[in-house]
Amino acid sequence: MDIELLRSLATPNDTKILLCVVDGLGGLRHPETRRSELETASIPNLDRLAEESVCGLTLPVTYGVTPGSGPGHLALFGYDPLRYEVGRGVLEALGIDFDLQPADVAARGNFCTLDADGRVTDRRAGRIPTEETVALCARLRSITLPGVRLFVEPVREHRFVLVLRGEGLDGRLAQNDPEREGVAPLPVRATWPEAQATADLVNDFVAKGRKKLAGETRANGLLLRGFAKYPDLPPLPEVTQMRAGAFAVYPMYRGLAKLVGMSVAPGGGTPMSQMEAMRARWRDFDFFFYHYKKADTAGEDGNFRAKVEALEELDALIPSLRALDADVMIVAGDHSTPAIIASHSWHPVPFLLWSRRVSADDVYEFNEATCRQGALGIFPAKDALGLAMAYAGRLVKYGA
Amino acid sequence: MDIELLRSLATPNDTKILLCVVDGLGGLRHPETRRSELETASIPNLDRLAEESVCGLTLPVTYGVTPGSGPGHLALFGYDPLRYEVGRGVLEALGIDFDLQPADVAARGNFCTLDADGRVTDRRAGRIPTEETVALCARLRSITLPGVRLFVEPVREHRFVLVLRGEGLDGRLAQNDPEREGVAPLPVRATWPEAQATADLVNDFVAKGRKKLAGETRANGLLLRGFAKYPDLPPLPEVTQMRAGAFAVYPMYRGLAKLVGMSVAPGGGTPMSQMEAMRARWRDFDFFFYHYKKADTAGEDGNFRAKVEALEELDALIPSLRALDADVMIVAGDHSTPAIIASHSWHPVPFLLWSRRVSADDVYEFNEATCRQGALGIFPAKDALGLAMAYAGRLVKYGA
Repeated sequence: MDIELLRSLATPNDTKILLCVVDGLGGLRHPETRRSELETASIPNLDRLAEESVCGLTLPVTYGVTPGSGPGHLALFGYDPLRYEVGRGVLEALGIDFDLQPADVAARGNFCTLDADGRVTDRRAGRIPTEETVALCARLRSITLPGVRLFVEPVREHRFVLVLRGEGLDGRLAQNDPEREGVAPLPVRATWPEAQATADLVNDFVAKGRKKLAGETRANGLLLRGFAKYPDLPPLPEVTQMRAGAFAVYPMYRGLAKLVGMSVAPGGGTPMSQMEAMRARWRDFDFFFYHYKKADTAGEDGNFRAKVEALEELDALIPSLRALDADVMIVAGDHSTPAIIASHSWHPVPFLLWSRRVSADDVYEFNEATCRQGALGIFPAKDALGLAMAYAGRLVKYGA
Repeated sequence: MDIELLRSLATPNDTKILLCVVDGLGGLRHPETRRSELETASIPNLDRLAEESVCGLTLPVTYGVTPGSGPGHLALFGYDPLRYEVGRGVLEALGIDFDLQPADVAARGNFCTLDADGRVTDRRAGRIPTEETVALCARLRSITLPGVRLFVEPVREHRFVLVLRGEGLDGRLAQNDPEREGVAPLPVRATWPEAQATADLVNDFVAKGRKKLAGETRANGLLLRGFAKYPDLPPLPEVTQMRAGAFAVYPMYRGLAKLVGMSVAPGGGTPMSQMEAMRARWRDFDFFFYHYKKADTAGEDGNFRAKVEALEELDALIPSLRALDADVMIVAGDHSTPAIIASHSWHPVPFLLWSRRVSADDVYEFNEATCRQGALGIFPAKDALGLAMAYAGRLVKYGA
C-alpha cells in the first residue's frame, strides 16, 4: 500500500514489530548440488520459525530489476522505491557515516588521471590506495568557496565524497564524469535553472582542485557524479505512529534508517552486540530494524560456502531474536545476492512473518522454493510493513 | 483491469454470469484443530465445483488492508476500491435501505451525552436502546432548515442517519465528532470553500437539535461524521454492456449494488427465497449478484462453529445455484472474516470461477490453502469481473 494509505490507516497500540533484514538473503541453486545457499545451509531455527509463520517471496522493485541497497531497504520500510529515490551522492555519504544535513548537496567523487591536454586517461587513477586518497582529501579540504562549507571525505581506494553545505544549494546537476577515457571531464551543468549557482560553485571547486593536484602523476583530476540532496521522505514514525529504532553494524544501513526518520543506535560491533543493544532499548521503540550484513558480502564475493556459513551464523542468532518476544517478527532480505552471480540480483527474496495471530501455511523450511508456496505468494516488498502492522493490529479498517 | 479498459473491451452476447458473494468467506486455522472454517466444514458441493473450476485467492484492496463491506464489494464489481470511495454516511444510509438520491448529503450520527458546559461525557449516550433513538429521531425531524428537506433515520442503539436533500449541497465537510470525551463537539467545517453553505445548514441543524434534546439526560447532543454524497461511479451496466440484477437479503448489499447501477430485487426473506427470486428473473439480466451474509455474521461473532455451519448451509444452496445454468459462475468473498479474529481481516479470500470453457486446475477442495495453489494465484479482487467476462466471451481482444 502507498504511504498515504498507510498513514490514513495507522493507529497506535503497544505492540512491537521486529524487522530483521538479511542483506542479500536470496540465492540461486548451485549448478553442481542443485541446492541454493539457503537449501544447503543447516538452519533449524529459521526452518522452525518458517513453520510457525506465513511465508512468501518479496519483489524489491519489480520483475527483472536488481536493486541497490537504497531501494531494497526503502521498500522494506514501506516506501515505493520507484517513487522515492535516494541519490548516489547521498548514499555514498551515508555509507561513510557522514552526518548529512537536509540542505547539503552531496556527490560521489573519483580521483582520476588526466594527460597534458586534460583528457582522462584513467577514470580511477590506477585505484590509488585508500591512504593516498585520505591525504589528497585533506589537501582538497583547504579549498575555499564563497558562502559554502566544504567537506571532502575519503571512501576507499580512489573514491571520495564531496559535500557542500550552505544556503540555497540545489542538487540538480549533471555529472562532470564523461564515463569514458580519452576525453576531458565535462563542465558540471545545472539541469534546472535554479541550480546554476551551485553548478558554478562546483566548477570552481573542480578548477581549484586541479591546481591542488597539479603535482600528482596519477590522481591529478576529479570526477564527480550522483549530485543529490537528502530525499524528501515522509518520516516513518509519523506515517506509522511507531517509534522506530535501527540497529546495524554498518553505516550505510544506519544512514538509510536515518533517512526515513528512525532513531539510530551506535554502529559497529557484531551482529550479536547489535542484538544486545536492541534488547537494552526494547522499551524505547515500537518498530525495530535489525540489519545482518554477512550474507550479502559472501554473495558479492561469489563465495557460495561463505554465504552458507553466513546464513548458519544468522540462524544461530534467531533464538536470541525470538527471545525479544516481538508481537510481529519478519525475516526478509533487501534483495537477493546469489553467490553464483556474485552480485545483487532481481530474484524475489524469501520472506517470513511470524506473529501469534498467524495461521501458518504449509511451509516447513525457509528457502526460495518453499517460500514461493507460502500463503503470501510473490508480493511487493513495499507491502511488507503494512502487512506487519496489520498483524500487529496497528491498521484500522479501510472503508465501512 | 481498470474500468476504462473494461469499457473499451466489453461486447454483449447472450451469456449469463452469476457472482455469488459469500460475505466474510475467508478464514484462518483454528489453533487447536489447525483447520480453517472452510477446511472444517463439510462442503461437498463447493469442493466438486472447485474441482471443475479455476481457483485462486483475491486481494480485496491490497496486502495488509482490511476492507469494509463497501470496498470489498466494489472490488468484486470491478471498481478499484482505492480509486472509488464510498463515504460512511452513504453506506450507513444504504444499510437502512434509505432511498438516497445523487444530490443528497448523508452523515452518520450518534446521540451523545453533553455536560452542563457542553463537553462530551459519553460519545454513545450510554448506548440508548433503539426504541429511544426512534423517538428522538422523530423529534429531530420537526426541525426546519431553509431550502432543504431533512431526514433523520434511526439505525440501531444510539446511531442514526442524517440526510439533507436540496439544491447545491456539498458533502466536503469535516465531522463535528471530536472522537474523544471531555471536549465540546467541533463546529462542522467545510473542507472545500464550495461546501460552506452546507456546513452552515448542518451547524444550524446541530444547534436546533440540541434545543430539541435539552430535556434529555443521556441523549442531549449530536455527533455527526462521514459526510458524503453519492459517489460518482460509472454504471456497471453501461461499462460492461450487461443488464445487472442484485439479489440480497440485507439492505447494505442491495444499496451497494444500486450504487453501481444494478437493478435491485426486493430484499428480505432467506438465501433460498433470494435464489428463487433470481431464478424467476433469469431472463431479465445478464449479470447476477447474489449475496450470502451468514458466514460474515458468524465470523464477526467469533463463532467458529457457527461459521462452519453457515458455510455448510451455503454448500447446500450450491446445487440450486448451479441449476440456474449460468455460463460463468463465481464463488467469492468481499473479504475474510476469520472467527479466530472475530472481525474483517486483510487475508486473501478463496475464489473459484466455473465455466464450461474452464480448463480446471488441480484444486479439488475449496479452502484457503488449496485455492492458493490454484491457477489464478493471488490476484486483485477488482480483476474478477473482467475475468468472468473473458470466460463469458464478453471481452474483445486488446490490440491487433
